[in-house]
Amino acid sequence: MVSIAIMGHGVVGSGVAKQKLFSAVGEELRIKYILDLREFPDSPLSDRFTKSFDDILGDIEVRIVVETMGGIHPAYEYVKACLSAGKSVVTSNKELVAAHGAELLSIAKETNANFLFEASVGGGIPILRPINQCLVANDVSEIAGILNGTTNFILTKMIKENMQLEDALKLAQELGYAERNPAADIEGHDACRKICILASLTYGKHIYPDAVYTEGITGITLSDVEYASIWGGVIKLIGSVKKVSKDKIDIIVAPMFIPNESQLSSIDDVFNGIMVRGDSVGDVVFYGRGAGKLPTASAVVADVIDCVKHLKARKYLSWADSDNSSVIPHEDSVAAMYVRVKANDKDEAYHKAEEVFGEIHLLKKPDAPSWELAFVTEPMTVREFDEKLRAFSSGDIEVCSRIRIGDL
Amino acid sequence: MVSIAIMGHGVVGSGVAKQKLFSAVGEELRIKYILDLREFPDSPLSDRFTKSFDDILGDIEVRIVVETMGGIHPAYEYVKACLSAGKSVVTSNKELVAAHGAELLSIAKETNANFLFEASVGGGIPILRPINQCLVANDVSEIAGILNGTTNFILTKMIKENMQLEDALKLAQELGYAERNPAADIEGHDACRKICILASLTYGKHIYPDAVYTEGITGITLSDVEYASIWGGVIKLIGSVKKVSKDKIDIIVAPMFIPNESQLSSIDDVFNGIMVRGDSVGDVVFYGRGAGKLPTASAVVADVIDCVKHLKARKYLSWADSDNSSVIPHEDSVAAMYVRVKANDKDEAYHKAEEVFGEIHLLKKPDAPSWELAFVTEPMTVREFDEKLRAFSSGDIEVCSRIRIGDL
Repeated sequence: MVSIAIMGHGVVGSGVAKQKLFSAVGEELRIKYILDLREFPDSPLSDRFTKSFDDILGDIEVRIVVETMGGIHPAYEYVKACLSAGKSVVTSNKELVAAHGAELLSIAKETNANFLFEASVGGGIPILRPINQCLVANDVSEIAGILNGTTNFILTKMIKENMQLEDALKLAQELGYAERNPAADIEGHDACRKICILASLTYGKHIYPDAVYTEGITGITLSDVEYASIWGGVIKLIGSVKKVSKDKIDIIVAPMFIPNESQLSSIDDVFNGIMVRGDSVGDVVFYGRGAGKLPTASAVVADVIDCVKHLKARKYLSWADSDNSSVIPHEDSVAAMYVRVKANDKDEAYHKAEEVFGEIHLLKKPDAPSWELAFVTEPMTVREFDEKLRAFSSGDIEVCSRIRIGDL
Repeated sequence: MVSIAIMGHGVVGSGVAKQKLFSAVGEELRIKYILDLREFPDSPLSDRFTKSFDDILGDIEVRIVVETMGGIHPAYEYVKACLSAGKSVVTSNKELVAAHGAELLSIAKETNANFLFEASVGGGIPILRPINQCLVANDVSEIAGILNGTTNFILTKMIKENMQLEDALKLAQELGYAERNPAADIEGHDACRKICILASLTYGKHIYPDAVYTEGITGITLSDVEYASIWGGVIKLIGSVKKVSKDKIDIIVAPMFIPNESQLSSIDDVFNGIMVRGDSVGDVVFYGRGAGKLPTASAVVADVIDCVKHLKARKYLSWADSDNSSVIPHEDSVAAMYVRVKANDKDEAYHKAEEVFGEIHLLKKPDAPSWELAFVTEPMTVREFDEKLRAFSSGDIEVCSRIRIGDL
């Protein structure tokens, strides 16, 4: 009989408490404590609730602790204390793992405990374990993913239903896909935490979110969506990490033009999709619901079951701390760029664009306003592009949009 | 230092021998033997070759044996002997696992050895481990997949380039995707072995290929491909298993109409894709190269590394033997059906179709020959459909095609 505790009885935590933990594992499991400051008198597990973390920490019977509180504090202090006491911890908290993963993994190693967090990326989609185990014989050159369901829902509504961004956001909020304060989603921070976790696991060094250039979707207009379609693709918010040399990576979160041929282009609504490019296996894509109570809870429970099976032997999941020095400066990142401008004289602007950017690929939209010019450049560094754009946009040319072209 | 042996130096085996096994695992690994009857004097590992299986079986230093010979004999006897001797075995041989998996897993359990075969389904795509570990908290209601790259390549050429089946097959052979004798691929046997392995793992009872209704792609015409497009989808060879009650499954391999909205519809060329439908996680799809030297070898190597990490503790991968009694008779399987017929009098045939099948959905092709009628029925059992089709096709109505509608 293994006793577990669940910290946090919110969306994911209450899903975990509902899972039929017992059916999938031979050894019997028991939820001994549920930590929450709120009261849940009607819960069938109402007798397990506690408001005191010390009940959990001090109980040697509790071998596995599930953390589904979210946020950094006090999740960080609690998880650290549990791991230090030799209890294994399973979490769905991407913010916590992205901020303190290396330290918590190192404590887990010292105390021979497990620290597992499959649910922190892609909700119920198996991704961390496949990367860590199944693809281990591959040199991974790139990971790119649609990692945030809320923004993907909004972009899908813009692409498929011509809905304005604000209206799509409002709808996402009404449907419960977006929080009242949607900043973490639409400004890309949530996707950033996830690509940091994927990069840390894949390349063995902790990448902290503040080292990652992060751009959200708030600047995307229906005009840009149409031009993406004319170009032959769709706009998706992509978290991407590329290996650029033996110990350097290029990591970014930004909206990108994705060609229709890419498997990621057809991942719509709240679904997530993650492409892993290995030297042996080629492109592998994982697709499914990246969030939600039950998908996420099912990933947490799978980790709990893995912990039960590895109470003595640790799982081989670990990465080292780092100072982010493996991340190349964003200015050195290379991509082709889409540019949309407002120009008094369109022909003049076109010639200037050719003069400044060299070869460009003009995008023609039948119903474009007379003042609008849109084109795609050749690949160049962000530094070079910024310089050229400055030179180009002087005078009576005003930049409306600039979006990266994803080379997927 | 762990010594391993590789049995078979064909496509996959020679890929495994090339993998940088050492880089991904802490404990050192050494290829001590390569078993093959042929000579490879130019191989950098030429000193490891042996023609005698007994060298491998008798060497207690060899803890892990890779089987990449293919076929049932002598692979079965060799693998059985290795497992009986307590050596762990990793194989990519789907024919072997589909035919003898339960017995070999049970021997592995007895001798506390591992028997792993991630590469046997989906080549390099992680699928067995994710189902067994990550999705373990889910009740899986269905698995459906494009499990054979050769037939998917042929169908893609028919769909996208209007190529005749025979020409597409010839091209696949020229490109090395299809064998000179392509029967195992185009008649569905390869896909059948894979869906059997997926079903056995998911539902815990060995399903043998001879219990599975299996239909290949040889009857598919360009006309059918066009009608599928008019219907709003594509024809794919699908291996599918559905849970129809607590201990009954419906398992089948057949070409099916797949709606364009399904993630499986956009999986083209030699790529494979496998959809797993769980009660908590919803639909999860795994996509990638389902065959080929390096993808498959990378999955074999990942299993070898897992064996090294579990030399003492067995992995929890097992299923029971069975008499296939959980498989419902194919006649009880339910699906809507596409029917294409040759009729002297099209109007009369249409009315007869309505009379016999009840509600039908007519498919209109602008350039259809005057004698052709195509429609889709409502869902019904195969038994019912067969009876109705017999009643319908009497007289001057000749059935050209009948294809299942996949409800994915």
